[in-house]
Amino acid sequence: MAEPVIHHRARDYRELFERLLSRLEGIFRTENDILLYTASGTGGMESAVANLCSPGERVVVVSAGYFGERWSQIARAYGLEVDELAYEWGETPSPAELAIRLDELGSAAAVLLTQSETSTGVVADIEALAEPAREAGALVVVDAISSLGAVPLETDAWGVDVAVSGSQKALMTPPGLALVSISPAAWERAARASSPAYYFAWEPVRKAQEKFDATFTPAVSLVQALDVAVGLLLEEGLEEAFDRHVRLGRACRAGIKAMGLDLFSPDEDRSAVVTAVRVPDDVDGQMLVASIRDRFGITLAPGQGPLKGKIFRIGHIGYFDVFDITTALAAVELALAEAGADIERGVAVTRALEAFEHTVV
Amino acid sequence: MAEPVIHHRARDYRELFERLLSRLEGIFRTENDILLYTASGTGGMESAVANLCSPGERVVVVSAGYFGERWSQIARAYGLEVDELAYEWGETPSPAELAIRLDELGSAAAVLLTQSETSTGVVADIEALAEPAREAGALVVVDAISSLGAVPLETDAWGVDVAVSGSQKALMTPPGLALVSISPAAWERAARASSPAYYFAWEPVRKAQEKFDATFTPAVSLVQALDVAVGLLLEEGLEEAFDRHVRLGRACRAGIKAMGLDLFSPDEDRSAVVTAVRVPDDVDGQMLVASIRDRFGITLAPGQGPLKGKIFRIGHIGYFDVFDITTALAAVELALAEAGADIERGVAVTRALEAFEHTVV
Repeated sequence: MAEPVIHHRARDYRELFERLLSRLEGIFRTENDILLYTASGTGGMESAVANLCSPGERVVVVSAGYFGERWSQIARAYGLEVDELAYEWGETPSPAELAIRLDELGSAAAVLLTQSETSTGVVADIEALAEPAREAGALVVVDAISSLGAVPLETDAWGVDVAVSGSQKALMTPPGLALVSISPAAWERAARASSPAYYFAWEPVRKAQEKFDATFTPAVSLVQALDVAVGLLLEEGLEEAFDRHVRLGRACRAGIKAMGLDLFSPDEDRSAVVTAVRVPDDVDGQMLVASIRDRFGITLAPGQGPLKGKIFRIGHIGYFDVFDITTALAAVELALAEAGADIERGVAVTRALEAFEHTVV
Repeated sequence: MAEPVIHHRARDYRELFERLLSRLEGIFRTENDILLYTASGTGGMESAVANLCSPGERVVVVSAGYFGERWSQIARAYGLEVDELAYEWGETPSPAELAIRLDELGSAAAVLLTQSETSTGVVADIEALAEPAREAGALVVVDAISSLGAVPLETDAWGVDVAVSGSQKALMTPPGLALVSISPAAWERAARASSPAYYFAWEPVRKAQEKFDATFTPAVSLVQALDVAVGLLLEEGLEEAFDRHVRLGRACRAGIKAMGLDLFSPDEDRSAVVTAVRVPDDVDGQMLVASIRDRFGITLAPGQGPLKGKIFRIGHIGYFDVFDITTALAAVELALAEAGADIERGVAVTRALEAFEHTVV
């Protein structure tokens, strides 16, 4: 990113972009088109709604947290009929319940899913959720913003019609780029949809990308950075990166439990994206996060929405190794002890390292 | 941009964002709200259309090049009735003709203007064009993407309701951020408009910005860079920057004319953004730009649309001094001489330096 900005209408950019798109195919595990937008991941989500649907059409949103609710907000902004299969924040969506809901409804244009619900730490089973959606003739649309590159997403093998991701999570790049993979069935639907779209319209971007060009001036420095970062990811190996994330998750949960804290996110063996932890009674969660940030320069994520102040989250997606986790655990331990919380001292870091090292993935 | 990415929901970001927004007010010369989007400038343009207008409403687009036509495309994508006051590429829009057109039409929701038509090098007289628009009760909406910070834009004094800009031109930052200033009258109109908008919706961004927060994950590293760059611009002084741009334009045109080349953009004393030059007969303009890029590492801009191959453009907006201009001129001179064009050798650089040094702005 510190390199000179190259001109996006010149050959340098085309070479960079061609390489990046080919690398991304390996990460999305797809032969579908992958479009790149200069936008937050939310822009990529909006592109799916705007390009696939017409006002009045029904979509089913499977929602169990902050980002599931975002799908509903976008769909409502476009005048869609939103049917929510809503779970409590922190619950894991059930493919069987989705099948029942789709059966009751009779039909839906699309099912909008969240792979990693960053607000709660839950990773949904996209492969299983996609099945009833496909059977009901609905397109499978997945927010994979915080999951792509951290946990498996088999776009083609699982029949994911649209997968949306962003640069800033497991793709290890600063925020500002959204990625959208689009299946042939989704392209067919898009050809008939009537919602307005210009910046996020798919077809002009696809046409430009055929020549490794962009419709509008892209965030060139971020594109350069993303190319390097996905190169690093492929060099590590996608399976190896998934395994590393699994082991980071185990290490984090082992440390948290050793301290005597309660997990908010599920204590599942392969949870790998973010670990949400209940704040002990009598401790102010917002203050805890702020004090760890200010005193130690360590950034934890606070609770969002109804979980504000009640949980804190330790992220472990992307450019992380186990010592980032032990550092976070050590800081949490110190800050909680000083806040007078009743926690076990001196064991979290050791347990975390053991869990990381001795795990058969 | 090489600094660590800061968390956009934490205090560091709020302090940065507050300072940036206050600096931008000085550059937009406005007390209006200025919203920041992670997007190309085109995204900011779309936000104006989507937030201000309802399907079927009439807008007048004043168009004299590639970017004027973009306004029409966006407005049509949103189902607006587009009335184009269209000029040949390279012509300068006439305020009197706009007044007549508005008079004929009776009413229009908005007039969509382009301050610097980068495709041709023409800078329109926004102050004069805004007057008939205001008198007709239309909102004044200006694409100031390649002009803000290079030529005067008096947002409040000229009654500009919406000014759109981007990070990557005179604001001297890599691409990826769009800026939109919004007058009270535009907010009123936006409250009644019915086009769908989510990512580009104005109201949620305004609310978030009240607390120096963002609706969606912003391109943090670009925000950090923009803050530094607009700090540099204000340190130089806005008037001083305008003067520097005027002198760079004069230097560039003096050099081009000294070589015996024809200007495509107007030979106006205060032209300051980009200099468009006719490619001599028997020279391939695309090849010329490519060869200067490949041999010398100097990036000129090719012609766009109907001007493809017929012109090349020397940019002088933003982080430029006169030696960037003389370098470009020297390369053009060498490349054209080698291509067999009949040009005057050995005078362009000297004339350019004279024009830059001896000019009373």
